[in-house]
Amino acid sequence: MSTMSTLTEPEFNNVAVIGLGLIGGSMAAALTARGLSVAAYDTNKENLKLGLSMQVIDRVADSVAEVVKGADLIIVAVPVLAMAEVFQSLRPLFDHPEVIITDVASVKQEVLALAENVAGKLPDNFVPGHPIAGSEKHGVAASDPQLFRNHKVILTPVDNTDCLAVDKVSRLWQQMGANVSKLSILHHDQILAQTSHLPHLLAYGLIDTLSQQGDSLEIFDYAAGGLRDFSRIAASDPTMWRDIFHSNKQPLLAVLDRYLDKLAELKLLIEADKTDDLFTLLERAKFARDHFGQLLNQSD
Amino acid sequence: MSTMSTLTEPEFNNVAVIGLGLIGGSMAAALTARGLSVAAYDTNKENLKLGLSMQVIDRVADSVAEVVKGADLIIVAVPVLAMAEVFQSLRPLFDHPEVIITDVASVKQEVLALAENVAGKLPDNFVPGHPIAGSEKHGVAASDPQLFRNHKVILTPVDNTDCLAVDKVSRLWQQMGANVSKLSILHHDQILAQTSHLPHLLAYGLIDTLSQQGDSLEIFDYAAGGLRDFSRIAASDPTMWRDIFHSNKQPLLAVLDRYLDKLAELKLLIEADKTDDLFTLLERAKFARDHFGQLLNQSD
Repeated sequence: MSTMSTLTEPEFNNVAVIGLGLIGGSMAAALTARGLSVAAYDTNKENLKLGLSMQVIDRVADSVAEVVKGADLIIVAVPVLAMAEVFQSLRPLFDHPEVIITDVASVKQEVLALAENVAGKLPDNFVPGHPIAGSEKHGVAASDPQLFRNHKVILTPVDNTDCLAVDKVSRLWQQMGANVSKLSILHHDQILAQTSHLPHLLAYGLIDTLSQQGDSLEIFDYAAGGLRDFSRIAASDPTMWRDIFHSNKQPLLAVLDRYLDKLAELKLLIEADKTDDLFTLLERAKFARDHFGQLLNQSD
Repeated sequence: MSTMSTLTEPEFNNVAVIGLGLIGGSMAAALTARGLSVAAYDTNKENLKLGLSMQVIDRVADSVAEVVKGADLIIVAVPVLAMAEVFQSLRPLFDHPEVIITDVASVKQEVLALAENVAGKLPDNFVPGHPIAGSEKHGVAASDPQLFRNHKVILTPVDNTDCLAVDKVSRLWQQMGANVSKLSILHHDQILAQTSHLPHLLAYGLIDTLSQQGDSLEIFDYAAGGLRDFSRIAASDPTMWRDIFHSNKQPLLAVLDRYLDKLAELKLLIEADKTDDLFTLLERAKFARDHFGQLLNQSD
Protein backbone atom coordinates (compact mmCIF):
# COMPACT_ATOMS: atom_id res chain seq x y z
CA MET A 1 0.00 0.00 0.00
CA SER A 2 1.16 3.50 -0.75
CA THR A 3 0.31 6.94 0.45
CA MET A 4 0.25 8.18 -3.15
CA SER A 5 -3.14 9.65 -3.97
CA THR A 6 -4.95 10.43 -7.15
CA LEU A 7 -7.56 13.00 -8.11
CA THR A 8 -9.44 10.61 -10.35
CA GLU A 9 -11.69 7.92 -8.94
CA PRO A 10 -10.06 4.52 -9.57
CA GLU A 11 -11.99 2.62 -12.23
CA PHE A 12 -10.62 -0.70 -11.01
CA ASN A 13 -10.28 -1.93 -7.47
CA ASN A 14 -8.99 -5.48 -7.59
CA VAL A 15 -6.31 -6.35 -10.07
CA ALA A 16 -5.07 -9.83 -10.94
CA VAL A 17 -1.64 -10.06 -12.56
CA ILE A 18 -0.85 -13.34 -14.30
CA GLY A 19 2.90 -13.51 -14.91
CA LEU A 20 5.00 -11.37 -12.55
CA GLY A 21 7.97 -10.53 -14.75
CA LEU A 22 9.42 -7.11 -15.62
CA ILE A 23 6.21 -5.83 -17.27
CA GLY A 24 3.67 -7.54 -14.99
CA GLY A 25 5.74 -6.55 -11.97
CA SER A 26 6.11 -2.93 -13.08
CA MET A 27 2.36 -2.62 -13.73
CA ALA A 28 1.67 -4.23 -10.34
CA ALA A 29 4.07 -1.80 -8.66
CA ALA A 30 2.47 1.21 -10.37
CA LEU A 31 -1.07 0.07 -9.50
CA THR A 32 -0.21 -0.88 -5.92
CA ALA A 33 1.29 2.58 -5.54
CA ARG A 34 -2.05 4.03 -6.70
CA GLY A 35 -3.85 2.20 -3.90
CA LEU A 36 -5.31 -0.66 -5.93
CA SER A 37 -5.32 -4.15 -4.48
CA VAL A 38 -3.07 -6.35 -6.62
CA ALA A 39 -2.89 -10.15 -6.50
CA ALA A 40 -0.49 -12.14 -8.64
CA TYR A 41 0.04 -15.62 -9.96
CA ASP A 42 3.22 -16.92 -11.59
CA THR A 43 4.47 -20.44 -12.29
CA ASN A 44 7.72 -19.27 -10.70
CA LYS A 45 7.03 -19.10 -6.94
CA GLU A 46 10.25 -17.17 -6.32
CA ASN A 47 8.92 -14.28 -8.43
CA LEU A 48 5.78 -14.18 -6.27
CA LYS A 49 7.74 -14.28 -3.00
CA LEU A 50 10.03 -11.54 -4.20
CA GLY A 51 7.10 -9.44 -5.45
CA LEU A 52 5.45 -9.70 -2.04
CA SER A 53 8.64 -8.79 -0.17
CA MET A 54 9.19 -5.83 -2.55
CA GLN A 55 5.56 -4.74 -1.84
CA VAL A 56 4.93 -4.77 -5.57
CA ILE A 57 1.84 -6.92 -4.92
CA ASP A 58 -0.53 -7.37 -1.98
CA ARG A 59 -1.31 -11.05 -2.30
CA VAL A 60 -0.15 -14.19 -4.08
CA ALA A 61 -2.33 -16.94 -5.53
CA ASP A 62 -1.67 -20.59 -6.35
CA SER A 63 -3.49 -20.70 -9.67
CA VAL A 64 -5.03 -18.60 -12.41
CA ALA A 65 -8.49 -19.58 -11.12
CA GLU A 66 -7.60 -18.32 -7.65
CA VAL A 67 -5.91 -15.07 -8.66
CA VAL A 68 -8.85 -13.86 -10.76
CA LYS A 69 -11.44 -14.34 -7.99
CA GLY A 70 -13.09 -10.97 -7.35
CA ALA A 71 -10.82 -9.17 -9.83
CA ASP A 72 -12.28 -6.43 -12.03
CA LEU A 73 -9.05 -6.17 -14.07
CA ILE A 74 -6.97 -9.13 -15.23
CA ILE A 75 -3.54 -8.46 -16.71
CA VAL A 76 -2.04 -11.33 -18.69
CA ALA A 77 1.72 -10.76 -18.75
CA VAL A 78 3.13 -14.20 -19.58
CA PRO A 79 5.27 -15.14 -22.62
CA VAL A 80 3.07 -15.55 -25.70
CA LEU A 81 3.21 -19.32 -25.91
CA ALA A 82 2.07 -19.59 -22.28
CA MET A 83 -1.11 -17.63 -23.10
CA ALA A 84 -3.00 -20.64 -24.52
CA GLU A 85 -3.17 -22.28 -21.11
CA VAL A 86 -4.02 -19.00 -19.39
CA PHE A 87 -6.88 -18.41 -21.87
CA GLN A 88 -8.28 -21.87 -21.08
CA SER A 89 -8.39 -20.97 -17.38
CA LEU A 90 -9.90 -17.55 -18.11
CA ARG A 91 -12.66 -18.96 -20.32
CA PRO A 92 -15.41 -18.64 -17.67
CA LEU A 93 -14.73 -14.87 -17.56
CA PHE A 94 -14.78 -14.27 -21.32
CA ASP A 95 -17.44 -11.74 -22.36
CA HIS A 96 -18.35 -10.90 -18.75
CA PRO A 97 -18.50 -7.08 -18.92
CA GLU A 98 -17.90 -6.68 -15.17
CA VAL A 99 -14.30 -7.81 -15.61
CA ILE A 100 -11.81 -6.49 -18.14
CA ILE A 101 -8.96 -8.63 -19.42
CA THR A 102 -5.87 -7.12 -21.06
CA ASP A 103 -2.42 -8.33 -22.06
CA VAL A 104 1.01 -6.87 -22.77
CA ALA A 105 2.35 -9.17 -25.49
CA SER A 106 4.70 -7.89 -28.19
CA VAL A 107 2.73 -9.82 -30.85
CA LYS A 108 -1.00 -9.53 -31.39
CA GLN A 109 -2.02 -11.83 -34.26
CA GLU A 110 -0.97 -14.84 -32.22
CA VAL A 111 -2.94 -13.61 -29.18
CA LEU A 112 -6.01 -13.37 -31.41
CA ALA A 113 -5.36 -16.87 -32.78
CA LEU A 114 -4.96 -18.35 -29.30
CA ALA A 115 -8.20 -16.71 -28.14
CA GLU A 116 -9.97 -17.98 -31.23
CA ASN A 117 -8.84 -21.49 -30.40
CA VAL A 118 -10.50 -21.25 -27.01
CA ALA A 119 -13.50 -19.02 -27.64
CA GLY A 120 -13.91 -18.71 -31.39
CA LYS A 121 -13.07 -14.97 -31.20
CA LEU A 122 -11.31 -12.39 -29.10
CA PRO A 123 -13.67 -11.89 -26.11
CA ASP A 124 -15.53 -8.54 -26.05
CA ASN A 125 -14.01 -7.75 -22.65
CA PHE A 126 -10.44 -8.41 -23.81
CA VAL A 127 -8.39 -5.31 -24.68
CA PRO A 128 -5.15 -6.31 -26.39
CA GLY A 129 -2.33 -4.01 -25.32
CA HIS A 130 1.41 -3.64 -25.69
CA PRO A 131 3.60 -1.22 -23.73
CA ILE A 132 6.68 -0.24 -25.80
CA ALA A 133 8.92 -0.40 -22.79
CA GLY A 134 11.25 -2.99 -21.51
CA SER A 135 14.81 -3.78 -20.93
CA GLU A 136 17.28 -6.58 -21.22
CA LYS A 137 16.68 -6.92 -17.47
CA HIS A 138 13.89 -9.27 -16.59
CA GLY A 139 11.96 -10.68 -13.67
CA VAL A 140 10.06 -8.86 -10.94
CA ALA A 141 13.40 -7.91 -9.34
CA ALA A 142 13.80 -5.32 -12.12
CA SER A 143 10.24 -3.99 -11.81
CA ASP A 144 9.80 -0.24 -11.74
CA PRO A 145 6.51 1.64 -11.23
CA GLN A 146 7.90 4.43 -13.46
CA LEU A 147 8.78 2.08 -16.34
CA PHE A 148 5.92 3.25 -18.56
CA ARG A 149 6.29 6.99 -17.97
CA ASN A 150 6.56 8.78 -21.36
CA HIS A 151 6.54 5.45 -23.17
CA LYS A 152 4.08 4.47 -25.84
CA VAL A 153 1.40 1.86 -25.25
CA ILE A 154 -0.34 0.44 -28.31
CA LEU A 155 -3.88 -0.92 -27.96
CA THR A 156 -5.18 -3.11 -30.78
CA PRO A 157 -8.93 -3.54 -30.21
CA VAL A 158 -10.95 -5.53 -32.77
CA ASP A 159 -14.48 -4.85 -34.07
CA ASN A 160 -16.28 -6.54 -31.22
CA THR A 161 -14.07 -5.16 -28.43
CA ASP A 162 -16.12 -3.28 -25.82
CA CYS A 163 -15.41 0.46 -26.35
CA LEU A 164 -15.84 1.27 -22.67
CA ALA A 165 -13.30 -1.40 -21.77
CA VAL A 166 -10.84 0.13 -24.26
CA ASP A 167 -11.38 3.56 -22.71
CA LYS A 168 -10.85 2.26 -19.18
CA VAL A 169 -7.63 0.40 -20.09
CA SER A 170 -6.46 3.45 -22.00
CA ARG A 171 -7.00 5.72 -18.97
CA LEU A 172 -5.24 3.22 -16.72
CA TRP A 173 -2.13 3.39 -18.90
CA GLN A 174 -2.32 7.18 -19.00
CA GLN A 175 -2.44 7.19 -15.20
CA MET A 176 0.81 5.20 -15.30
CA GLY A 177 2.30 8.01 -17.43
CA ALA A 178 2.11 6.27 -20.81
CA ASN A 179 1.04 7.71 -24.17
CA VAL A 180 -1.65 5.50 -25.66
CA SER A 181 -2.12 4.89 -29.41
CA LYS A 182 -4.34 2.50 -31.31
CA LEU A 183 -3.25 0.35 -34.25
CA SER A 184 -4.73 -2.59 -36.09
CA ILE A 185 -3.40 -5.98 -35.05
CA LEU A 186 -1.64 -6.59 -38.36
CA HIS A 187 -0.10 -3.13 -38.48
CA HIS A 188 1.15 -3.47 -34.91
CA ASP A 189 2.83 -6.79 -35.67
CA GLN A 190 4.45 -5.47 -38.85
CA ILE A 191 5.84 -2.38 -37.14
CA LEU A 192 7.12 -4.26 -34.10
CA ALA A 193 8.75 -6.88 -36.32
CA GLN A 194 10.87 -4.07 -37.75
CA THR A 195 11.59 -1.90 -34.74
CA SER A 196 11.99 -4.51 -32.06
CA HIS A 197 11.86 -8.16 -33.13
CA LEU A 198 14.42 -7.93 -35.96
CA PRO A 199 16.99 -5.96 -33.89
CA HIS A 200 16.71 -8.54 -31.11
CA LEU A 201 17.18 -11.40 -33.58
CA LEU A 202 20.23 -9.68 -35.10
CA ALA A 203 21.81 -9.04 -31.70
CA TYR A 204 21.30 -12.65 -30.54
CA GLY A 205 22.76 -13.81 -33.86
CA LEU A 206 25.83 -11.58 -33.60
CA ILE A 207 26.68 -12.62 -30.05
CA ASP A 208 26.22 -16.28 -30.98
CA THR A 209 28.49 -15.82 -34.02
CA LEU A 210 31.25 -14.12 -32.01
CA SER A 211 31.05 -16.30 -28.90
CA GLN A 212 31.33 -19.52 -30.87
CA GLN A 213 34.79 -18.51 -32.08
CA GLY A 214 37.72 -20.19 -30.39
CA ASP A 215 39.18 -16.83 -29.38
CA SER A 216 35.92 -15.34 -28.14
CA LEU A 217 37.37 -14.26 -24.80
CA GLU A 218 40.00 -12.21 -26.62
CA ILE A 219 37.38 -10.87 -29.04
CA PHE A 220 35.20 -9.48 -26.28
CA ASP A 221 38.22 -8.24 -24.37
CA TYR A 222 39.05 -5.92 -27.28
CA ALA A 223 35.47 -4.81 -27.83
CA ALA A 224 34.36 -1.25 -27.24
CA GLY A 225 31.20 0.60 -26.36
CA GLY A 226 29.76 0.14 -29.84
CA LEU A 227 29.45 -3.62 -29.45
CA ARG A 228 28.25 -3.26 -25.88
CA ASP A 229 25.32 -1.03 -26.86
CA PHE A 230 24.63 -2.97 -30.04
CA SER A 231 24.43 -6.31 -28.24
CA ARG A 232 22.76 -5.30 -24.98
CA ILE A 233 19.39 -6.65 -26.13
CA ALA A 234 20.93 -10.11 -26.60
CA ALA A 235 20.84 -10.39 -22.80
CA SER A 236 17.03 -10.37 -22.93
CA ASP A 237 14.92 -13.30 -21.70
CA PRO A 238 15.27 -16.23 -24.18
CA THR A 239 11.84 -17.72 -23.42
CA MET A 240 10.06 -14.46 -24.11
CA TRP A 241 11.98 -13.89 -27.34
CA ARG A 242 11.66 -17.45 -28.61
CA ASP A 243 7.91 -16.99 -28.22
CA ILE A 244 7.93 -13.61 -29.98
CA PHE A 245 10.07 -14.80 -32.92
CA HIS A 246 7.87 -17.88 -33.31
CA SER A 247 4.58 -16.03 -32.91
CA ASN A 248 5.38 -13.15 -35.24
CA LYS A 249 6.95 -15.41 -37.83
CA GLN A 250 5.57 -13.94 -41.07
CA PRO A 251 6.17 -10.22 -40.42
CA LEU A 252 9.58 -11.01 -38.90
CA LEU A 253 10.70 -13.20 -41.81
CA ALA A 254 9.47 -10.54 -44.26
CA VAL A 255 11.68 -7.82 -42.76
CA LEU A 256 14.54 -10.29 -42.21
CA ASP A 257 14.48 -10.97 -45.95
CA ARG A 258 14.62 -7.25 -46.70
CA TYR A 259 17.54 -6.96 -44.30
CA LEU A 260 19.34 -9.91 -45.90
CA ASP A 261 18.94 -8.15 -49.26
CA LYS A 262 20.53 -5.04 -47.73
CA LEU A 263 23.46 -7.04 -46.35
CA ALA A 264 23.91 -8.67 -49.76
CA GLU A 265 23.99 -5.18 -51.30
CA LEU A 266 26.55 -3.98 -48.76
CA LYS A 267 28.64 -7.11 -49.30
CA LEU A 268 28.66 -6.54 -53.04
CA LEU A 269 29.64 -2.87 -52.67
CA ILE A 270 32.58 -3.84 -50.45
CA GLU A 271 33.65 -6.79 -52.60
CA ALA A 272 33.55 -4.72 -55.78
CA ASP A 273 35.34 -1.70 -54.21
CA LYS A 274 32.36 0.53 -55.00
CA THR A 275 33.42 3.07 -52.42
CA ASP A 276 31.25 5.89 -53.80
CA ASP A 277 28.06 3.82 -53.65
CA LEU A 278 29.08 2.52 -50.24
CA PHE A 279 29.53 6.08 -49.02
CA THR A 280 26.11 7.08 -50.40
CA LEU A 281 24.43 4.26 -48.47
CA LEU A 282 26.28 4.98 -45.20
CA GLU A 283 25.61 8.71 -45.47
CA ARG A 284 21.90 8.07 -46.12
CA ALA A 285 21.72 5.76 -43.09
CA LYS A 286 23.55 8.26 -40.89
CA PHE A 287 21.17 11.00 -42.01
CA ALA A 288 18.17 8.81 -41.17
CA ARG A 289 19.62 7.82 -37.78
CA ASP A 290 20.32 11.45 -36.92
CA HIS A 291 16.82 12.42 -38.05
CA PHE A 292 14.98 9.60 -36.33
CA GLY A 293 17.37 9.64 -33.38
CA GLN A 294 15.34 12.53 -32.01
CA LEU A 295 12.27 10.28 -31.91
CA LEU A 296 14.30 7.42 -30.46
CA ASN A 297 15.75 9.58 -27.72
CA GLN A 298 12.27 10.37 -26.49
CA SER A 299 11.58 6.70 -26.01
CA ASP A 300 13.55 6.14 -22.86
CA MET B 1 48.49 25.71 -22.22
CA SER B 2 47.43 24.09 -18.99
CA THR B 3 48.59 24.19 -15.42
CA MET B 4 48.35 20.41 -15.14
CA SER B 5 51.74 18.95 -14.27
CA THR B 6 53.27 15.51 -14.49
CA LEU B 7 55.92 13.75 -12.43
CA THR B 8 57.50 12.09 -15.45
CA GLU B 9 59.71 14.03 -17.82
CA PRO B 10 57.86 14.50 -21.12
CA GLU B 11 59.45 12.38 -23.82
CA PHE B 12 57.99 14.56 -26.53
CA ASN B 13 57.85 18.33 -26.71
CA ASN B 14 56.34 19.30 -30.04
CA VAL B 15 53.42 17.32 -31.35
CA ALA B 16 51.92 17.54 -34.82
CA VAL B 17 48.37 16.24 -35.23
CA ILE B 18 47.27 15.53 -38.79
CA GLY B 19 43.49 15.21 -38.83
CA LEU B 20 41.69 16.99 -35.98
CA GLY B 21 38.61 14.80 -35.54
CA LEU B 22 37.32 13.10 -32.41
CA ILE B 23 40.45 10.98 -31.88
CA GLY B 24 43.05 13.48 -33.08
CA GLY B 25 41.28 16.23 -31.13
CA SER B 26 41.04 14.17 -27.95
CA MET B 27 44.74 13.24 -28.14
CA ALA B 28 45.59 16.89 -28.78
CA ALA B 29 43.47 17.95 -25.80
CA ALA B 30 45.11 15.38 -23.52
CA LEU B 31 48.63 16.33 -24.63
CA THR B 32 48.00 20.08 -24.48
CA ALA B 33 46.73 19.55 -20.94
CA ARG B 34 50.05 17.83 -20.13
CA GLY B 35 51.94 20.92 -21.25
CA LEU B 36 53.08 19.72 -24.67
CA SER B 37 52.99 22.10 -27.61
CA VAL B 38 50.45 20.81 -30.14
CA ALA B 39 50.07 22.00 -33.73
CA ALA B 40 47.40 20.64 -36.04
CA TYR B 41 46.57 20.38 -39.70
CA ASP B 42 43.21 19.37 -41.14
CA THR B 43 41.71 19.76 -44.62
CA ASN B 44 38.67 21.13 -42.81
CA LYS B 45 39.65 24.63 -41.68
CA GLU B 46 36.61 24.89 -39.40
CA ASN B 47 37.94 21.99 -37.31
CA LEU B 48 41.22 23.84 -36.86
CA LYS B 49 39.53 27.10 -35.91
CA LEU B 50 37.29 25.31 -33.43
CA GLY B 51 40.24 23.36 -31.98
CA LEU B 52 42.13 26.60 -31.43
CA SER B 53 39.16 28.31 -29.79
CA MET B 54 38.59 25.24 -27.56
CA GLN B 55 42.32 25.41 -26.61
CA VAL B 56 42.67 21.82 -27.72
CA ILE B 57 45.67 22.87 -29.83
CA ASP B 58 48.21 25.67 -29.62
CA ARG B 59 48.77 26.34 -33.29
CA VAL B 60 47.29 25.62 -36.72
CA ALA B 61 49.19 24.86 -39.90
CA ASP B 62 48.26 25.13 -43.58
CA SER B 63 49.80 21.89 -44.75
CA VAL B 64 51.26 18.59 -43.62
CA ALA B 65 54.75 19.90 -44.48
CA GLU B 66 54.19 22.92 -42.25
CA VAL B 67 52.63 21.14 -39.27
CA VAL B 68 55.45 18.61 -38.92
CA LYS B 69 58.23 21.26 -38.82
CA GLY B 70 60.10 20.82 -35.53
CA ALA B 71 57.76 18.07 -34.32
CA ASP B 72 59.20 15.10 -32.42
CA LEU B 73 55.86 13.27 -32.50
CA ILE B 74 53.56 13.10 -35.49
CA ILE B 75 50.06 11.71 -34.99
CA VAL B 76 48.25 10.70 -38.18
CA ALA B 77 44.53 10.70 -37.36
CA VAL B 78 42.86 10.95 -40.77
CA PRO B 79 40.44 8.43 -42.37
CA VAL B 80 42.39 5.46 -43.77
CA LEU B 81 42.01 6.35 -47.44
CA ALA B 82 43.41 9.83 -46.78
CA MET B 83 46.61 8.32 -45.36
CA ALA B 84 48.23 7.70 -48.78
CA GLU B 85 48.56 11.41 -49.43
CA VAL B 86 49.73 12.09 -45.87
CA PHE B 87 52.40 9.38 -46.22
CA GLN B 88 53.66 11.03 -49.42
CA SER B 89 54.10 14.30 -47.52
CA LEU B 90 55.76 12.55 -44.57
CA ARG B 91 58.24 10.70 -46.75
CA PRO B 92 61.22 12.98 -45.91
CA LEU B 93 60.76 12.06 -42.23
CA PHE B 94 60.56 8.29 -42.71
CA ASP B 95 63.28 6.44 -40.78
CA HIS B 96 64.51 9.60 -39.06
CA PRO B 97 64.86 8.35 -35.47
CA GLU B 98 64.56 11.87 -33.98
CA VAL B 99 60.88 11.97 -34.90
CA ILE B 100 58.28 9.31 -34.16
CA ILE B 101 55.23 8.84 -36.33
CA THR B 102 52.13 7.03 -35.10
CA ASP B 103 48.56 6.60 -36.28
CA VAL B 104 45.16 5.70 -34.81
CA ALA B 105 43.49 3.83 -37.66
CA SER B 106 41.03 1.02 -37.01
CA VAL B 107 42.67 -1.10 -39.76
CA LYS B 108 46.36 -1.90 -39.89
CA GLN B 109 47.02 -4.08 -42.98
CA GLU B 110 45.97 -1.21 -45.21
CA VAL B 111 48.22 1.24 -43.35
CA LEU B 112 51.13 -1.13 -43.97
CA ALA B 113 50.17 -1.42 -47.64
CA LEU B 114 49.95 2.36 -48.06
CA ALA B 115 53.35 2.82 -46.42
CA GLU B 116 54.81 0.11 -48.63
CA ASN B 117 53.53 1.97 -51.68
CA VAL B 118 55.47 5.06 -50.62
CA ALA B 119 58.54 3.65 -48.90
CA GLY B 120 58.69 -0.06 -49.68
CA LYS B 121 58.08 -0.88 -46.00
CA LEU B 122 56.64 0.50 -42.80
CA PRO B 123 59.24 3.08 -41.69
CA ASP B 124 61.29 2.09 -38.60
CA ASN B 125 60.08 5.21 -36.78
CA PHE B 126 56.40 4.49 -37.47
CA VAL B 127 54.47 2.91 -34.58
CA PRO B 128 51.06 1.73 -35.77
CA GLY B 129 48.46 2.26 -33.05
CA HIS B 130 44.73 2.04 -32.50
CA PRO B 131 42.83 3.33 -29.47
CA ILE B 132 39.68 1.25 -28.89
CA ALA B 133 37.68 4.31 -28.03
CA GLY B 134 35.30 6.38 -29.97
CA SER B 135 31.75 7.40 -30.28
CA GLU B 136 29.10 8.05 -32.86
CA LYS B 137 29.95 11.68 -32.18
CA HIS B 138 32.67 13.04 -34.41
CA GLY B 139 34.74 16.13 -35.09
CA VAL B 140 36.92 18.13 -32.75
CA ALA B 141 33.78 19.56 -31.12
CA ALA B 142 33.32 16.19 -29.38
CA SER B 143 36.95 15.91 -28.29
CA ASP B 144 37.63 14.89 -24.70
CA PRO B 145 41.04 14.66 -23.03
CA GLN B 146 39.65 11.82 -20.86
CA LEU B 147 38.45 9.78 -23.86
CA PHE B 148 41.19 7.15 -23.56
CA ARG B 149 41.09 6.69 -19.81
CA ASN B 150 40.67 2.97 -19.00
CA HIS B 151 40.37 2.16 -22.69
CA LYS B 152 42.54 -0.25 -24.58
CA VAL B 153 45.10 0.90 -27.11
CA ILE B 154 46.52 -1.71 -29.46
CA LEU B 155 49.98 -1.20 -30.94
CA THR B 156 50.95 -3.37 -33.92
CA PRO B 157 54.71 -2.90 -34.46
CA VAL B 158 56.40 -4.92 -37.23
CA ASP B 159 59.84 -6.57 -37.21
CA ASN B 160 61.77 -3.48 -38.19
CA THR B 161 59.87 -1.04 -35.94
CA ASP B 162 62.21 0.80 -33.55
CA CYS B 163 61.68 -0.71 -30.06
CA LEU B 164 62.43 2.55 -28.30
CA ALA B 165 59.80 4.31 -30.41
CA VAL B 166 57.26 1.63 -29.45
CA ASP B 167 58.11 2.13 -25.77
CA LYS B 168 57.76 5.89 -26.01
CA VAL B 169 54.40 5.73 -27.78
CA SER B 170 53.26 3.11 -25.29
CA ARG B 171 54.15 5.33 -22.33
CA LEU B 172 52.43 8.29 -23.97
CA TRP B 173 49.18 6.33 -24.16
CA GLN B 174 49.59 5.17 -20.58
CA GLN B 175 49.99 8.79 -19.52
CA MET B 176 46.63 9.44 -21.19
CA GLY B 177 45.15 6.70 -18.98
CA ALA B 178 44.99 3.92 -21.59
CA ASN B 179 45.89 0.25 -21.24
CA VAL B 180 48.32 -0.69 -23.99
CA SER B 181 48.46 -4.14 -25.65
CA LYS B 182 50.40 -5.42 -28.63
CA LEU B 183 48.96 -7.55 -31.43
CA SER B 184 50.12 -8.59 -34.86
CA ILE B 185 48.68 -6.56 -37.72
CA LEU B 186 46.63 -9.46 -39.09
CA HIS B 187 45.29 -10.47 -35.68
CA HIS B 188 44.30 -6.87 -34.94
CA ASP B 189 42.38 -6.57 -38.18
CA GLN B 190 40.59 -9.90 -37.68
CA ILE B 191 39.53 -9.05 -34.14
CA LEU B 192 38.37 -5.54 -35.01
CA ALA B 193 36.41 -6.83 -38.01
CA GLN B 194 34.36 -8.87 -35.55
CA THR B 195 34.00 -6.55 -32.57
CA SER B 196 33.68 -3.23 -34.32
CA HIS B 197 33.50 -3.24 -38.11
CA LEU B 198 30.74 -5.86 -38.48
CA PRO B 199 28.45 -4.30 -35.82
CA HIS B 200 28.80 -0.91 -37.54
CA LEU B 201 27.99 -2.45 -40.94
CA LEU B 202 24.93 -4.22 -39.47
CA ALA B 203 23.66 -1.05 -37.81
CA TYR B 204 24.04 1.05 -40.97
CA GLY B 205 22.26 -1.73 -42.89
CA LEU B 206 19.36 -1.93 -40.45
CA ILE B 207 18.74 1.81 -40.40
CA ASP B 208 18.90 1.93 -44.20
CA THR B 209 16.43 -0.97 -44.42
CA LEU B 210 13.95 0.63 -42.03
CA SER B 211 14.26 4.20 -43.27
CA GLN B 212 13.63 3.24 -46.89
CA GLN B 213 10.16 1.99 -45.97
CA GLY B 214 7.27 4.25 -46.91
CA ASP B 215 6.10 4.35 -43.29
CA SER B 216 9.53 4.94 -41.79
CA LEU B 217 8.41 7.92 -39.73
CA GLU B 218 5.78 5.74 -38.05
CA ILE B 219 8.26 2.90 -37.63
CA PHE B 220 10.73 5.02 -35.71
CA ASP B 221 7.94 6.67 -33.76
CA TYR B 222 7.02 3.29 -32.27
CA ALA B 223 10.61 2.24 -31.64
CA ALA B 224 11.94 1.75 -28.14
CA GLY B 225 15.27 1.89 -26.37
CA GLY B 226 16.38 -1.41 -27.87
CA LEU B 227 16.52 0.01 -31.39
CA ARG B 228 18.02 3.26 -30.14
CA ASP B 229 20.98 1.53 -28.50
CA PHE B 230 21.31 -1.01 -31.30
CA SER B 231 21.45 1.63 -34.01
CA ARG B 232 23.42 4.39 -32.26
CA ILE B 233 26.62 3.46 -34.14
CA ALA B 234 24.85 4.08 -37.47
CA ALA B 235 25.21 7.79 -36.68
CA SER B 236 29.00 7.45 -37.01
CA ASP B 237 31.02 9.33 -39.63
CA PRO B 238 30.31 7.80 -43.10
CA THR B 239 33.72 8.75 -44.58
CA MET B 240 35.61 7.06 -41.78
CA TRP B 241 33.48 3.94 -41.97
CA ARG B 242 33.51 3.70 -45.77
CA ASP B 243 37.31 3.72 -45.51
CA ILE B 244 37.35 1.09 -42.76
CA PHE B 245 34.92 -1.27 -44.55
CA HIS B 246 36.90 -0.89 -47.78
CA SER B 247 40.32 -1.23 -46.15
CA ASN B 248 39.50 -4.22 -43.97
CA LYS B 249 37.61 -5.97 -46.74
CA GLN B 250 38.82 -9.58 -46.34
CA PRO B 251 38.49 -9.96 -42.55
CA LEU B 252 35.16 -8.10 -42.62
CA LEU B 253 33.70 -10.19 -45.44
CA ALA B 254 34.87 -13.36 -43.66
CA VAL B 255 32.96 -12.55 -40.48
CA LEU B 256 30.02 -11.18 -42.47
CA ASP B 257 29.76 -14.57 -44.17
CA ARG B 258 29.76 -16.33 -40.81
CA TYR B 259 27.06 -13.95 -39.63
CA LEU B 260 24.97 -14.55 -42.76
CA ASP B 261 25.21 -18.29 -42.04
CA LYS B 262 23.95 -17.61 -38.51
CA LEU B 263 21.01 -15.55 -39.83
CA ALA B 264 20.21 -18.35 -42.31
CA GLU B 265 20.21 -20.80 -39.38
CA LEU B 266 17.93 -18.54 -37.33
CA LYS B 267 15.62 -18.07 -40.32
CA LEU B 268 15.35 -21.82 -40.80
CA LEU B 269 14.62 -22.44 -37.12
CA ILE B 270 11.81 -19.86 -37.19
CA GLU B 271 10.40 -21.04 -40.54
CA ALA B 272 10.39 -24.68 -39.44
CA ASP B 273 8.90 -23.91 -35.99
CA LYS B 274 11.93 -25.46 -34.29
CA THR B 275 11.23 -23.64 -31.06
CA ASP B 276 13.43 -25.89 -28.90
CA ASP B 277 16.51 -25.35 -31.08
CA LEU B 278 15.67 -21.65 -31.32
CA PHE B 279 15.52 -21.45 -27.53
CA THR B 280 18.87 -23.24 -27.22
CA LEU B 281 20.52 -20.72 -29.51
CA LEU B 282 18.97 -17.68 -27.77
CA GLU B 283 19.84 -19.04 -24.33
CA ARG B 284 23.44 -19.69 -25.40
CA ALA B 285 23.73 -16.14 -26.79
CA LYS B 286 22.20 -14.64 -23.65
CA PHE B 287 24.64 -16.61 -21.51
CA ALA B 288 27.57 -15.37 -23.61
CA ARG B 289 26.32 -11.76 -23.50
CA ASP B 290 25.90 -11.93 -19.72
CA HIS B 291 29.35 -13.48 -19.37
CA PHE B 292 31.15 -11.14 -21.75
CA GLY B 293 29.01 -8.19 -20.70
CA GLN B 294 31.30 -7.80 -17.71
CA LEU B 295 34.24 -7.25 -20.06
CA LEU B 296 32.15 -4.94 -22.27
CA ASN B 297 31.05 -2.82 -19.33
CA GLN B 298 34.65 -2.07 -18.48
CA SER B 299 35.21 -0.65 -21.93
CA ASP B 300 33.46 2.65 -21.45
